[in-house]
Amino acid sequence: MTSYQSFRREIEALRQAIRRGEYTSHTAGLARGYLQANIVIASVEFALDFMRYCQRNPKPCPLIGVSDTGNPKMWTLGADIDIRTDIPSYNIFRDGELAGTATDIADLWADDLVAFALGCSFTFEHALLEAGIDVSHITNDTTVPMFRTNIPTVPAGPFRGDMVVSMRMIPSQRVGEAIAISRRYPLAHGSPVHVGNPEAIGIVDVRRPDWGDPVPVPPAHTPVFWACGVTPQAVIRNARLPMCITHKPGHMLITEVPDDAEVPVVLKNKQGELR
Amino acid sequence: MTSYQSFRREIEALRQAIRRGEYTSHTAGLARGYLQANIVIASVEFALDFMRYCQRNPKPCPLIGVSDTGNPKMWTLGADIDIRTDIPSYNIFRDGELAGTATDIADLWADDLVAFALGCSFTFEHALLEAGIDVSHITNDTTVPMFRTNIPTVPAGPFRGDMVVSMRMIPSQRVGEAIAISRRYPLAHGSPVHVGNPEAIGIVDVRRPDWGDPVPVPPAHTPVFWACGVTPQAVIRNARLPMCITHKPGHMLITEVPDDAEVPVVLKNKQGELR
Repeated sequence: MTSYQSFRREIEALRQAIRRGEYTSHTAGLARGYLQANIVIASVEFALDFMRYCQRNPKPCPLIGVSDTGNPKMWTLGADIDIRTDIPSYNIFRDGELAGTATDIADLWADDLVAFALGCSFTFEHALLEAGIDVSHITNDTTVPMFRTNIPTVPAGPFRGDMVVSMRMIPSQRVGEAIAISRRYPLAHGSPVHVGNPEAIGIVDVRRPDWGDPVPVPPAHTPVFWACGVTPQAVIRNARLPMCITHKPGHMLITEVPDDAEVPVVLKNKQGELR
Repeated sequence: MTSYQSFRREIEALRQAIRRGEYTSHTAGLARGYLQANIVIASVEFALDFMRYCQRNPKPCPLIGVSDTGNPKMWTLGADIDIRTDIPSYNIFRDGELAGTATDIADLWADDLVAFALGCSFTFEHALLEAGIDVSHITNDTTVPMFRTNIPTVPAGPFRGDMVVSMRMIPSQRVGEAIAISRRYPLAHGSPVHVGNPEAIGIVDVRRPDWGDPVPVPPAHTPVFWACGVTPQAVIRNARLPMCITHKPGHMLITEVPDDAEVPVVLKNKQGELR
């Protein structure tokens, strides 16, 4: 059995468990070597401005997939991905406020909806781990700490606001290496947006994240901040969309696109087979 | 005077000449170190599908800027870029057919139009030249040869069709190097889509390009093919848009975004100054 076939079996089992609502936890560390994605689902009325927003802010919002309007199958990201069921946990926003969570949104899906997939930091985290740089929220099986900042994003239509970042405490002598590794993954937020001084980007207390779980702040470590795919969840509040659905932070869509792909598309040959 | 100030003076003089219709030639070799862009202008009715098409085909269509609907100022790409006047030569398509050319489209601009800027191979050509790899269409001051292929693109809405590629004859022992250099520029088509065998991608005669000028085919050189931003001009024919405007191949928009930028946006600080 090839490594790809082995991956397909693993991913298929995991996807079925998520689809049935049996797996509802975060997805850090799962399906290593493949892109995971933040998700935003909104009415087609807002889709063009949201795509502009992603194009203008590719570090927090690296767009790796966009569904056809009304089609819940995200066929560019995998052979059988259904965005209504294939995320472990969803956030549902109404008029910009978090109105509930769900493990399935089949009853909310409608013909006017468009789903957007944005690359995720799990991709470069795998590369950090492979380089022997410890990532404590993975070691401790918690959700990465995320913070609101005062870094402005570039606006598009109703979408505007400050960037959300995720934080990792990196051994100070390896910060340069961590920057270089993450820069190799532009589809997964690329290099950090800030290193070292949380106050400079408006973070008062690194021990109290706005999303996710706190992490230890050990000596001889430096806080490093990467643009985060939760940024749209803050921006949606500002835009006050009547209805919008996202993943629950940390609970991602698992795609079938290798994380070192130049193009975030599952390409098929002329016979329709994956190539 | 800093290098950036010097660039601003050069670019400003060139832009004014283009704007007044005095410079109408191709832009290869100009404003080195800054992104140049292929342009597609279409009604907002088609904009979402066209953005999806670009997202699904980032090698031929690396999206580096999208205007606000009806706003001819492409403010994310420079302090004073007006898409109605700042391209040396435009192609105008009606019902999918080339209906004319112009050096100014002020009379065609309308409130429903959206302009899209796609990265351009001039970026990696500068890097090839700096590495001492000769690029003969630049040396000879001609337009790069471009060809239709049989490589399918990933469809979105009415946009579908085969990829257009540009060709460079590379000294055979330096092909690996040329691939590695171009791969560093994902906003400028990235690595080649094919090396060596034109017939394998449906090109009958490399001496007869579909766009641009023929180049010499010297011994000990290998034809290398990169995805090309003229692809949308072929795709527009298939989509039969009632009206669509593009740049004339080789005659690009010159932006103020450095070609090694991680983010294709002219970022400003909170005081509105370029940073």
